[in-house]
Amino acid sequence: MPKEKLSIIKIGGNIIEDEQSLNDFLKLFANLKGKKILVHGGGKRATTIASKLGLESKMVNGRRVTDAETLEVITMVYGGLVNKNIVAQLQGLKINAIGLTGADINSITSEKRPVEEVDFGFVGDVKEVDHYAIDKLISADFTPVFCAITHDGKGQLLNTNADTITSQVAVGMSNLYDVSIYYCFELNGVLKDINDKNSVIKYIDSTLYKELLKQGIIADGMLPKLENCFNALQHGVKTINMGNTAMLTQENNNFTRITL
Amino acid sequence: MPKEKLSIIKIGGNIIEDEQSLNDFLKLFANLKGKKILVHGGGKRATTIASKLGLESKMVNGRRVTDAETLEVITMVYGGLVNKNIVAQLQGLKINAIGLTGADINSITSEKRPVEEVDFGFVGDVKEVDHYAIDKLISADFTPVFCAITHDGKGQLLNTNADTITSQVAVGMSNLYDVSIYYCFELNGVLKDINDKNSVIKYIDSTLYKELLKQGIIADGMLPKLENCFNALQHGVKTINMGNTAMLTQENNNFTRITL
Repeated sequence: MPKEKLSIIKIGGNIIEDEQSLNDFLKLFANLKGKKILVHGGGKRATTIASKLGLESKMVNGRRVTDAETLEVITMVYGGLVNKNIVAQLQGLKINAIGLTGADINSITSEKRPVEEVDFGFVGDVKEVDHYAIDKLISADFTPVFCAITHDGKGQLLNTNADTITSQVAVGMSNLYDVSIYYCFELNGVLKDINDKNSVIKYIDSTLYKELLKQGIIADGMLPKLENCFNALQHGVKTINMGNTAMLTQENNNFTRITL
Repeated sequence: MPKEKLSIIKIGGNIIEDEQSLNDFLKLFANLKGKKILVHGGGKRATTIASKLGLESKMVNGRRVTDAETLEVITMVYGGLVNKNIVAQLQGLKINAIGLTGADINSITSEKRPVEEVDFGFVGDVKEVDHYAIDKLISADFTPVFCAITHDGKGQLLNTNADTITSQVAVGMSNLYDVSIYYCFELNGVLKDINDKNSVIKYIDSTLYKELLKQGIIADGMLPKLENCFNALQHGVKTINMGNTAMLTQENNNFTRITL
Protein backbone atom coordinates (compact mmCIF):
# COMPACT_ATOMS: atom_id res chain seq x y z
CA MET A 1 0.00 0.00 0.00
CA PRO A 2 1.48 3.39 -0.90
CA LYS A 3 2.11 5.67 2.05
CA GLU A 4 0.24 8.93 2.50
CA LYS A 5 2.10 12.07 1.42
CA LEU A 6 3.64 14.47 3.95
CA SER A 7 5.34 17.77 3.03
CA ILE A 8 7.97 19.33 5.28
CA ILE A 9 8.68 22.97 4.51
CA LYS A 10 11.66 24.86 5.90
CA ILE A 11 11.90 28.64 5.87
CA GLY A 12 14.88 30.72 6.90
CA GLY A 13 15.67 34.18 8.14
CA ASN A 14 15.02 35.96 4.83
CA ILE A 15 11.32 35.11 5.11
CA ILE A 16 10.91 35.46 8.87
CA GLU A 17 12.55 38.86 9.09
CA ASP A 18 10.24 40.51 6.59
CA GLU A 19 6.61 40.79 7.70
CA GLN A 20 5.22 40.87 4.15
CA SER A 21 7.32 37.88 3.02
CA LEU A 22 6.18 35.91 6.06
CA ASN A 23 2.50 36.78 5.44
CA ASP A 24 2.82 35.80 1.79
CA PHE A 25 4.57 32.57 2.64
CA LEU A 26 2.04 31.59 5.31
CA LYS A 27 -0.77 31.96 2.76
CA LEU A 28 1.09 29.63 0.37
CA PHE A 29 1.71 27.20 3.21
CA ALA A 30 -1.96 27.31 4.27
CA ASN A 31 -3.07 26.53 0.72
CA LEU A 32 -0.70 23.59 0.36
CA LYS A 33 -2.76 20.38 0.11
CA GLY A 34 -2.24 17.39 2.37
CA LYS A 35 -0.46 16.80 5.65
CA LYS A 36 2.40 19.15 6.39
CA ILE A 37 5.02 20.33 8.87
CA LEU A 38 6.71 23.72 9.03
CA VAL A 39 10.26 24.24 10.31
CA HIS A 40 11.63 27.74 10.84
CA GLY A 41 14.95 29.22 11.82
CA GLY A 42 15.14 32.47 13.71
CA GLY A 43 17.14 34.80 11.53
CA LYS A 44 18.77 37.95 12.75
CA ARG A 45 15.96 38.79 15.19
CA ALA A 46 17.75 36.91 17.98
CA THR A 47 20.97 38.83 17.29
CA THR A 48 19.11 42.16 17.39
CA ILE A 49 17.39 41.35 20.67
CA ALA A 50 20.58 39.90 22.17
CA SER A 51 22.44 43.10 21.38
CA LYS A 52 19.59 45.21 22.84
CA LEU A 53 19.96 43.12 26.00
CA GLY A 54 23.66 43.93 25.97
CA LEU A 55 24.86 40.47 24.90
CA GLU A 56 27.57 40.23 22.30
CA SER A 57 27.45 37.48 19.69
CA LYS A 58 30.47 35.29 20.29
CA MET A 59 31.95 33.80 17.14
CA VAL A 60 34.70 31.18 16.88
CA ASN A 61 36.04 30.36 13.39
CA GLY A 62 33.07 32.20 11.93
CA ARG A 63 30.55 30.15 13.88
CA ARG A 64 28.30 31.38 16.64
CA VAL A 65 28.85 30.16 20.18
CA THR A 66 25.67 29.62 22.20
CA ASP A 67 26.41 30.50 25.82
CA ALA A 68 23.71 30.26 28.51
CA GLU A 69 22.51 33.83 27.96
CA THR A 70 22.40 33.44 24.17
CA LEU A 71 20.39 30.24 24.59
CA GLU A 72 17.88 32.21 26.69
CA VAL A 73 17.50 34.76 23.90
CA ILE A 74 17.13 32.01 21.29
CA THR A 75 14.48 30.31 23.43
CA MET A 76 12.63 33.61 23.77
CA VAL A 77 12.86 34.64 20.13
CA TYR A 78 12.63 31.34 18.21
CA GLY A 79 10.49 29.38 20.67
CA GLY A 80 8.30 32.30 21.78
CA LEU A 81 8.10 35.37 19.58
CA VAL A 82 8.60 33.86 16.12
CA ASN A 83 7.00 30.46 16.69
CA LYS A 84 3.86 31.62 18.51
CA ASN A 85 3.20 34.45 16.07
CA ILE A 86 3.44 32.01 13.17
CA VAL A 87 1.02 29.69 14.97
CA ALA A 88 -1.46 32.53 15.62
CA GLN A 89 -1.26 33.67 11.99
CA LEU A 90 -1.79 30.13 10.71
CA GLN A 91 -4.84 29.83 12.97
CA GLY A 92 -6.13 33.00 11.33
CA LEU A 93 -5.72 31.15 8.01
CA LYS A 94 -7.68 28.17 9.42
CA ILE A 95 -4.66 25.91 9.77
CA ASN A 96 -4.77 24.17 13.15
CA ALA A 97 -1.11 24.77 13.95
CA ILE A 98 0.83 23.73 17.04
CA GLY A 99 4.20 25.29 17.87
CA LEU A 100 6.94 22.96 19.06
CA THR A 101 10.52 22.70 20.18
CA GLY A 102 12.17 19.29 20.25
CA ALA A 103 11.44 19.21 23.99
CA ASP A 104 7.69 19.24 23.40
CA ILE A 105 6.33 15.65 23.36
CA ASN A 106 10.02 14.67 23.46
CA SER A 107 9.94 14.96 19.68
CA ILE A 108 13.62 15.67 18.96
CA THR A 109 16.38 14.61 21.32
CA SER A 110 19.88 15.83 20.69
CA GLU A 111 23.30 15.59 22.22
CA LYS A 112 25.25 18.62 23.36
CA ARG A 113 28.09 18.96 20.87
CA PRO A 114 31.26 17.65 22.55
CA VAL A 115 33.98 20.21 23.26
CA GLU A 116 36.91 19.56 20.95
CA GLU A 117 38.89 22.46 19.51
CA VAL A 118 35.93 24.77 19.97
CA ASP A 119 33.27 24.84 22.67
CA PHE A 120 30.10 25.76 20.82
CA GLY A 121 28.17 25.91 24.08
CA PHE A 122 24.53 24.86 24.18
CA VAL A 123 24.36 23.47 20.66
CA GLY A 124 22.79 20.09 20.02
CA ASP A 125 23.33 17.49 17.30
CA VAL A 126 20.14 15.53 16.63
CA LYS A 127 20.18 12.03 18.07
CA GLU A 128 16.60 10.80 17.84
CA VAL A 129 13.27 11.86 16.37
CA ASP A 130 10.11 10.36 17.89
CA HIS A 131 8.08 9.99 14.71
CA TYR A 132 5.28 8.19 16.54
CA ALA A 133 4.78 11.13 18.90
CA ILE A 134 4.85 13.64 16.03
CA ASP A 135 2.40 11.48 14.11
CA LYS A 136 -0.06 11.59 17.02
CA LEU A 137 -0.34 15.33 16.36
CA ILE A 138 -0.52 14.98 12.58
CA SER A 139 -3.12 12.22 12.81
CA ALA A 140 -5.20 14.49 15.05
CA ASP A 141 -5.15 17.01 12.15
CA PHE A 142 -2.78 19.39 13.89
CA THR A 143 0.00 21.01 11.85
CA PRO A 144 3.35 20.99 13.70
CA VAL A 145 5.48 24.14 13.51
CA PHE A 146 9.02 23.43 14.72
CA CYS A 147 11.54 26.05 15.75
CA ALA A 148 15.28 25.37 15.79
CA ILE A 149 15.50 24.20 19.41
CA THR A 150 15.88 20.64 20.69
CA HIS A 151 16.63 19.15 24.12
CA ASP A 152 18.89 16.55 25.68
CA GLY A 153 16.09 14.70 27.49
CA LYS A 154 17.59 15.66 30.83
CA GLY A 155 16.15 19.16 31.16
CA GLN A 156 18.48 21.11 28.89
CA LEU A 157 17.30 22.96 25.78
CA LEU A 158 19.82 23.08 22.90
CA ASN A 159 20.19 25.35 19.89
CA THR A 160 20.05 23.21 16.74
CA ASN A 161 20.45 23.93 13.04
CA ALA A 162 17.04 24.25 11.34
CA ASP A 163 18.17 22.48 8.15
CA THR A 164 19.30 19.50 10.20
CA ILE A 165 16.04 19.45 12.17
CA THR A 166 14.18 19.44 8.85
CA SER A 167 16.11 16.54 7.35
CA GLN A 168 16.10 14.49 10.57
CA VAL A 169 12.35 14.96 11.11
CA ALA A 170 11.86 14.07 7.44
CA VAL A 171 13.90 10.87 7.80
CA GLY A 172 11.94 9.93 10.93
CA MET A 173 8.55 10.62 9.33
CA SER A 174 9.58 8.55 6.29
CA ASN A 175 8.85 5.47 8.41
CA LEU A 176 5.18 6.40 8.18
CA TYR A 177 4.78 8.75 5.19
CA ASP A 178 5.95 9.45 1.68
CA VAL A 179 7.94 12.57 2.61
CA SER A 180 8.91 15.55 0.45
CA ILE A 181 11.08 18.35 1.79
CA TYR A 182 10.83 21.93 0.51
CA TYR A 183 13.83 24.05 1.45
CA CYS A 184 12.76 27.66 0.79
CA PHE A 185 15.70 30.03 0.44
CA GLU A 186 16.84 33.19 -1.35
CA LEU A 187 17.84 31.52 -4.62
CA ASN A 188 15.55 30.09 -7.26
CA GLY A 189 17.24 26.71 -6.85
CA VAL A 190 20.65 25.10 -7.25
CA LEU A 191 22.38 27.25 -9.87
CA LYS A 192 24.66 26.11 -12.70
CA ASP A 193 26.26 29.54 -12.68
CA ILE A 194 26.22 31.28 -9.30
CA ASN A 195 26.20 34.64 -11.09
CA ASP A 196 23.12 33.83 -13.14
CA LYS A 197 20.05 33.47 -10.94
CA ASN A 198 18.10 31.97 -13.81
CA SER A 199 20.51 29.07 -14.39
CA VAL A 200 18.47 26.76 -12.16
CA ILE A 201 19.28 23.06 -12.46
CA LYS A 202 15.74 21.69 -12.43
CA TYR A 203 16.50 18.10 -11.62
CA ILE A 204 19.39 16.45 -9.79
CA ASP A 205 19.85 12.75 -9.06
CA SER A 206 22.88 10.94 -7.60
CA THR A 207 24.50 10.45 -11.01
CA LEU A 208 24.21 14.11 -11.99
CA TYR A 209 25.28 15.14 -8.47
CA LYS A 210 28.59 13.25 -8.82
CA GLU A 211 29.06 14.84 -12.24
CA LEU A 212 28.37 18.35 -10.88
CA LEU A 213 30.79 17.77 -8.01
CA LYS A 214 33.49 16.66 -10.46
CA GLN A 215 32.93 19.77 -12.58
CA GLY A 216 33.18 21.95 -9.47
CA ILE A 217 29.71 23.39 -10.06
CA ILE A 218 28.56 22.53 -6.54
CA ALA A 219 30.75 24.35 -4.09
CA ASP A 220 30.81 26.56 -1.01
CA GLY A 221 27.54 26.89 0.89
CA MET A 222 25.66 24.57 -1.44
CA LEU A 223 27.97 21.62 -0.80
CA PRO A 224 26.91 20.79 2.78
CA LYS A 225 23.26 21.49 1.88
CA LEU A 226 23.30 18.95 -0.94
CA GLU A 227 25.28 16.40 1.06
CA ASN A 228 22.64 16.73 3.75
CA CYS A 229 19.94 16.22 1.06
CA PHE A 230 21.44 13.02 -0.36
CA ASN A 231 21.93 11.71 3.15
CA ALA A 232 18.20 12.24 3.84
CA LEU A 233 17.25 10.63 0.51
CA GLN A 234 19.39 7.60 1.33
CA HIS A 235 17.48 7.30 4.60
CA GLY A 236 14.01 7.19 3.11
CA VAL A 237 12.99 10.73 2.13
CA LYS A 238 11.35 10.66 -1.32
CA THR A 239 12.01 14.08 -2.87
CA ILE A 240 13.77 17.26 -1.86
CA ASN A 241 12.92 20.57 -3.47
CA MET A 242 15.05 23.71 -3.23
CA GLY A 243 14.04 27.15 -4.37
CA ASN A 244 12.11 30.25 -3.41
CA THR A 245 8.66 30.05 -1.82
CA ALA A 246 6.96 30.20 -5.24
CA MET A 247 7.79 26.51 -5.65
CA LEU A 248 4.87 25.83 -3.29
CA THR A 249 2.44 27.02 -5.97
CA GLN A 250 1.32 24.76 -8.79
CA GLU A 251 2.22 27.24 -11.53
CA ASN A 252 5.90 27.60 -10.84
CA ASN A 253 8.33 24.85 -11.81
CA ASN A 254 11.51 26.90 -11.79
CA PHE A 255 13.20 25.21 -8.82
CA THR A 256 15.48 22.25 -8.15
CA ARG A 257 14.01 18.81 -7.55
CA ILE A 258 16.38 16.27 -6.03
CA THR A 259 15.89 12.49 -5.84
CA LEU A 260 18.24 9.57 -5.40
CA MET B 1 -20.17 5.94 34.59
CA PRO B 2 -17.93 8.18 36.71
CA LYS B 3 -15.63 10.40 34.70
CA GLU B 4 -11.86 9.99 34.85
CA LYS B 5 -10.03 12.44 37.13
CA LEU B 6 -8.05 15.39 35.75
CA SER B 7 -5.99 17.79 37.88
CA ILE B 8 -5.24 21.33 36.72
CA ILE B 9 -2.44 23.02 38.62
CA LYS B 10 -1.73 26.73 38.43
CA ILE B 11 1.54 28.26 39.59
CA GLY B 12 2.37 31.93 39.82
CA GLY B 13 5.36 34.21 39.79
CA ASN B 14 6.59 33.30 43.27
CA ILE B 15 7.41 29.79 42.08
CA ILE B 16 8.59 30.63 38.56
CA GLU B 17 11.00 33.34 39.66
CA ASP B 18 12.93 31.14 42.03
CA GLU B 19 14.90 28.30 40.39
CA GLN B 20 14.87 26.08 43.47
CA SER B 21 11.13 26.58 44.07
CA LEU B 22 10.41 25.76 40.43
CA ASN B 23 12.57 22.60 40.55
CA ASP B 24 10.89 21.48 43.76
CA PHE B 25 7.44 22.17 42.37
CA LEU B 26 8.12 20.34 39.09
CA LYS B 27 9.12 17.22 41.05
CA LEU B 28 5.82 17.37 42.99
CA PHE B 29 3.94 17.91 39.72
CA ALA B 30 5.75 14.99 38.07
CA ASN B 31 4.83 12.70 40.97
CA LEU B 32 1.17 13.66 40.91
CA LYS B 33 -0.87 10.63 39.82
CA GLY B 34 -3.31 10.69 36.91
CA LYS B 35 -3.95 13.04 34.02
CA LYS B 36 -2.91 16.62 34.57
CA ILE B 37 -2.48 20.09 33.07
CA LEU B 38 -0.11 22.83 34.23
CA VAL B 39 -0.86 26.55 33.85
CA HIS B 40 1.80 29.14 34.63
CA GLY B 41 1.93 32.89 34.78
CA GLY B 42 5.09 34.74 33.98
CA GLY B 43 5.94 36.74 37.05
CA LYS B 44 8.35 39.62 37.12
CA ARG B 45 10.71 38.11 34.55
CA ALA B 46 8.82 39.86 31.73
CA THR B 47 9.08 43.20 33.56
CA THR B 48 12.83 42.72 34.07
CA ILE B 49 13.44 41.86 30.43
CA ALA B 50 11.13 44.64 29.22
CA SER B 51 13.07 47.18 31.24
CA LYS B 52 16.40 45.79 29.94
CA LEU B 53 14.99 46.32 26.44
CA GLY B 54 14.20 49.90 27.40
CA LEU B 55 10.41 49.46 27.65
CA GLU B 56 8.59 51.00 30.56
CA SER B 57 5.69 49.18 32.16
CA LYS B 58 2.61 51.28 31.59
CA MET B 59 0.07 51.16 34.39
CA VAL B 60 -3.43 52.65 34.42
CA ASN B 61 -5.39 52.54 37.70
CA GLY B 62 -2.83 50.09 39.02
CA ARG B 63 -3.27 47.70 36.10
CA ARG B 64 -0.70 46.92 33.45
CA VAL B 65 -1.33 48.02 29.87
CA THR B 66 -0.13 45.58 27.20
CA ASP B 67 1.04 47.60 24.21
CA ALA B 68 2.47 45.90 21.10
CA GLU B 69 6.03 45.90 22.42
CA THR B 70 5.01 44.58 25.84
CA LEU B 71 3.05 41.80 24.13
CA GLU B 72 6.24 40.85 22.25
CA VAL B 73 8.14 40.60 25.52
CA ILE B 74 5.34 38.56 27.11
CA THR B 75 5.32 36.22 24.11
CA MET B 76 9.09 35.82 24.38
CA VAL B 77 9.21 35.33 28.14
CA TYR B 78 5.99 33.43 28.94
CA GLY B 79 5.61 31.53 25.65
CA GLY B 80 9.32 30.93 25.05
CA LEU B 81 11.71 31.18 27.96
CA VAL B 82 9.50 30.11 30.87
CA ASN B 83 7.24 27.66 29.03
CA LYS B 84 9.92 25.79 27.09
CA ASN B 85 12.25 25.48 30.05
CA ILE B 86 9.42 24.01 32.12
CA VAL B 87 8.69 21.56 29.29
CA ALA B 88 12.36 20.52 29.03
CA GLN B 89 12.60 20.06 32.80
CA LEU B 90 9.42 17.98 32.88
CA GLN B 91 10.83 15.80 30.09
CA GLY B 92 13.88 15.30 32.30
CA LEU B 93 11.44 14.05 34.96
CA LYS B 94 9.85 11.68 32.41
CA ILE B 95 6.65 13.68 32.00
CA ASN B 96 5.80 13.94 28.30
CA ALA B 97 4.98 17.65 28.41
CA ILE B 98 3.84 19.91 25.59
CA GLY B 99 4.00 23.70 25.90
CA LEU B 100 1.03 25.68 24.65
CA THR B 101 -0.46 29.10 24.21
CA GLY B 102 -4.17 29.38 23.46
CA ALA B 103 -3.23 29.80 19.79
CA ASP B 104 -1.78 26.28 19.64
CA ILE B 105 -4.42 23.81 18.39
CA ASN B 106 -6.79 26.79 18.72
CA SER B 107 -7.22 25.72 22.34
CA ILE B 108 -8.23 29.04 23.91
CA THR B 109 -9.86 31.81 21.91
CA SER B 110 -10.33 35.18 23.51
CA GLU B 111 -11.67 38.59 22.68
CA LYS B 112 -9.55 41.71 22.87
CA ARG B 113 -10.89 43.65 25.84
CA PRO B 114 -13.03 46.51 24.50
CA VAL B 115 -11.71 50.02 25.09
CA GLU B 116 -13.92 51.75 27.62
CA GLU B 117 -12.44 54.09 30.20
CA VAL B 118 -9.07 52.39 29.86
CA ASP B 119 -7.40 50.82 26.82
CA PHE B 120 -5.64 47.78 28.25
CA GLY B 121 -4.10 47.06 24.85
CA PHE B 122 -3.51 43.47 23.76
CA VAL B 123 -5.36 41.83 26.62
CA GLY B 124 -7.85 39.06 25.95
CA ASP B 125 -10.91 37.84 27.83
CA VAL B 126 -11.48 34.12 27.30
CA LYS B 127 -14.36 33.36 24.96
CA GLU B 128 -14.01 29.67 24.13
CA VAL B 129 -11.97 26.64 25.19
CA ASP B 130 -11.71 23.75 22.72
CA HIS B 131 -11.82 20.89 25.22
CA TYR B 132 -11.92 18.30 22.44
CA ALA B 133 -8.65 19.57 20.98
CA ILE B 134 -6.99 19.68 24.42
CA ASP B 135 -8.29 16.18 25.11
CA LYS B 136 -6.61 14.86 21.95
CA LEU B 137 -3.29 15.73 23.59
CA ILE B 138 -4.25 14.36 27.00
CA SER B 139 -5.60 11.15 25.50
CA ALA B 140 -2.29 10.74 23.64
CA ASP B 141 -0.64 10.82 27.11
CA PHE B 142 0.86 14.27 26.61
CA THR B 143 0.77 16.72 29.52
CA PRO B 144 -0.26 20.24 28.42
CA VAL B 145 1.62 23.18 29.92
CA PHE B 146 -0.23 26.44 29.25
CA CYS B 147 1.26 29.89 29.51
CA ALA B 148 -0.88 32.99 30.00
CA ILE B 149 -1.32 33.83 26.31
CA THR B 150 -4.40 33.29 24.15
CA HIS B 151 -5.37 34.43 20.64
CA ASP B 152 -8.33 35.99 18.87
CA GLY B 153 -8.48 33.38 16.10
CA LYS B 154 -7.59 36.02 13.52
CA GLY B 155 -3.84 36.04 13.95
CA GLN B 156 -3.48 38.14 17.09
CA LEU B 157 -1.95 36.84 20.32
CA LEU B 158 -3.42 38.30 23.52
CA ASN B 159 -2.13 38.55 27.09
CA THR B 160 -4.57 36.77 29.40
CA ASN B 161 -4.79 36.31 33.16
CA ALA B 162 -3.44 32.89 34.18
CA ASP B 163 -6.08 32.34 36.90
CA THR B 164 -8.81 32.91 34.32
CA ILE B 165 -7.14 30.55 31.84
CA THR B 166 -7.02 27.94 34.60
CA SER B 167 -10.69 28.21 35.53
CA GLN B 168 -11.89 28.41 31.92
CA VAL B 169 -9.83 25.40 30.84
CA ALA B 170 -11.12 23.58 33.93
CA VAL B 171 -14.74 24.39 33.06
CA GLY B 172 -14.17 23.22 29.47
CA MET B 173 -12.48 19.98 30.52
CA SER B 174 -15.33 19.29 32.99
CA ASN B 175 -17.36 18.19 29.98
CA LEU B 176 -15.06 15.18 29.76
CA TYR B 177 -13.38 14.76 33.15
CA ASP B 178 -13.91 15.03 36.88
CA VAL B 179 -11.76 18.17 37.28
CA SER B 180 -9.92 19.45 40.35
CA ILE B 181 -8.05 22.75 40.31
CA TYR B 182 -5.01 23.42 42.50
CA TYR B 183 -4.17 27.11 42.80
CA CYS B 184 -0.65 27.22 44.23
CA PHE B 185 0.20 30.57 45.82
CA GLU B 186 2.19 32.17 48.62
CA LEU B 187 -0.31 31.53 51.41
CA ASN B 188 -1.16 28.22 53.02
CA GLY B 189 -4.76 28.68 51.97
CA VAL B 190 -7.69 31.03 52.56
CA LEU B 191 -6.98 32.54 55.98
CA LYS B 192 -9.47 33.36 58.72
CA ASP B 193 -7.07 35.99 60.03
CA ILE B 194 -4.88 37.54 57.34
CA ASN B 195 -2.17 38.17 60.00
CA ASP B 196 -2.04 34.54 61.06
CA LYS B 197 -0.68 32.33 58.31
CA ASN B 198 -1.76 29.25 60.20
CA SER B 199 -5.44 30.23 60.38
CA VAL B 200 -6.23 28.24 57.23
CA ILE B 201 -9.92 27.58 56.60
CA LYS B 202 -9.69 23.96 55.50
CA TYR B 203 -13.05 23.61 53.85
CA ILE B 204 -15.36 26.14 52.21
CA ASP B 205 -18.71 25.47 50.56
CA SER B 206 -21.27 27.97 49.25
CA THR B 207 -23.03 28.25 52.62
CA LEU B 208 -19.82 28.98 54.54
CA TYR B 209 -18.68 31.32 51.73
CA LYS B 210 -21.79 33.52 52.18
CA GLU B 211 -21.22 33.48 55.93
CA LEU B 212 -17.55 34.48 55.56
CA LEU B 213 -18.52 37.28 53.17
CA LYS B 214 -21.07 38.58 55.64
CA GLN B 215 -18.49 38.54 58.43
CA GLY B 216 -16.05 40.43 56.16
CA ILE B 217 -13.45 37.67 56.47
CA ILE B 218 -13.06 37.36 52.70
CA ALA B 219 -11.86 40.65 51.33
CA ASP B 220 -9.34 42.39 49.09
CA GLY B 221 -7.37 40.13 46.75
CA MET B 222 -9.11 36.97 47.92
CA LEU B 223 -12.57 38.19 46.91
CA PRO B 224 -12.18 38.00 43.11
CA LYS B 225 -10.25 34.72 43.45
CA LEU B 226 -13.07 33.07 45.38
CA GLU B 227 -15.77 34.52 43.16
CA ASN B 228 -13.89 33.03 40.23
CA CYS B 229 -13.75 29.69 42.07
CA PHE B 230 -17.48 29.50 42.76
CA ASN B 231 -18.18 30.49 39.20
CA ALA B 232 -16.03 27.55 37.99
CA LEU B 233 -17.71 25.17 40.47
CA GLN B 234 -21.14 26.26 39.23
CA HIS B 235 -19.99 25.41 35.71
CA GLY B 236 -18.94 21.85 36.41
CA VAL B 237 -15.55 21.90 38.16
CA LYS B 238 -15.61 19.42 41.07
CA THR B 239 -13.14 20.74 43.62
CA ILE B 240 -10.83 23.72 43.93
CA ASN B 241 -7.84 23.66 46.23
CA MET B 242 -5.88 26.71 47.30
CA GLY B 243 -2.59 26.69 49.17
CA ASN B 244 1.14 26.33 48.82
CA THR B 245 2.68 23.65 46.61
CA ALA B 246 2.86 21.18 49.53
CA MET B 247 -0.86 20.52 49.01
CA LEU B 248 0.20 18.36 46.05
CA THR B 249 1.75 15.85 48.44
CA GLN B 250 -0.33 13.25 50.23
CA GLU B 251 0.99 14.12 53.68
CA ASN B 252 -0.08 17.74 53.84
CA ASN B 253 -3.70 18.64 54.44
CA ASN B 254 -3.18 22.21 55.60
CA PHE B 255 -4.82 23.98 52.66
CA THR B 256 -8.27 25.17 51.60
CA ARG B 257 -10.61 22.84 49.76
CA ILE B 258 -13.57 24.48 48.05
CA THR B 259 -16.70 22.78 46.70
CA LEU B 260 -20.22 23.96 45.93
